[in-house]
Amino acid sequence: MEMQQAFMREAIRIAMENAVSGRGGPFGCVVVKDGRIIATGANEVTGTNDPTAHAEVVAIRRACQALGSFQLEGCEVYCSCEPCPMCLGALYWARPTAVYFAATKEDAATIGFDDHFIYAELERPITARERPMQQLMRAEALAAFEHWRTNPDKVPY
Amino acid sequence: MEMQQAFMREAIRIAMENAVSGRGGPFGCVVVKDGRIIATGANEVTGTNDPTAHAEVVAIRRACQALGSFQLEGCEVYCSCEPCPMCLGALYWARPTAVYFAATKEDAATIGFDDHFIYAELERPITARERPMQQLMRAEALAAFEHWRTNPDKVPY
Repeated sequence: MEMQQAFMREAIRIAMENAVSGRGGPFGCVVVKDGRIIATGANEVTGTNDPTAHAEVVAIRRACQALGSFQLEGCEVYCSCEPCPMCLGALYWARPTAVYFAATKEDAATIGFDDHFIYAELERPITARERPMQQLMRAEALAAFEHWRTNPDKVPY
Repeated sequence: MEMQQAFMREAIRIAMENAVSGRGGPFGCVVVKDGRIIATGANEVTGTNDPTAHAEVVAIRRACQALGSFQLEGCEVYCSCEPCPMCLGALYWARPTAVYFAATKEDAATIGFDDHFIYAELERPITARERPMQQLMRAEALAAFEHWRTNPDKVPY
């Protein structure tokens, strides 16, 4: 528990540093393996013009580079705030062993970072969403899937 | 509609090319502004050891670089497959005008790319999730939020 608090303290320190420096939103993330920090990330959305550069995504990408793997096997992830749906999706694809967070998404909403809209949209069927997506050319797309399915040399994941 | 089909055809071509080349999964994405393709992306997860490098995330990042903006204002996004929760989150943060897709997430599941688990988890409260997240040190994290809230020089987004 003391170790966990030390790692979370570092994630929060990064969040604060990011806010104070003006580089981006007040969010930090730390990835730990075998009791050692292997990567960190801060929110870099406005600084790098990348809407996907949330602290978690930045830290996951760096940790995977450090490990030479597209999976965070045996890793723990410490987030200064509860991950948004994008980051939660990224975490599920990366498959760390455990995820910890400090502030809640409701806390984030009170300072203007509101992902409630995204959560609500994800729960609705496509056609009932506020920003509906339109489907076209499914049959053509399935050809690429069929090639994947029947290819013996693929790298599945 | 003819324009839309041409753009989707390109997204599907990229998906097929990616599958045939073995560089990654059979997914492609195209970002369009003012009737012109400004960025494309293919799935690069296994090729670049980046679990966040889905076609949509790759294309969104490149399009934002091309525009010098962290928002896809006035853009349309064409995905060869229905976006996973991570990509859908990324799309909501990037705020394009419209999103089109071809194959469905059920089609993707039949060839081994199953994001149903992530959708199901997102709908559950944190403590009821199959992979629960643990909260700690909320009070400490709120200090960074308070700094953000009261900082007159921040770049909100």
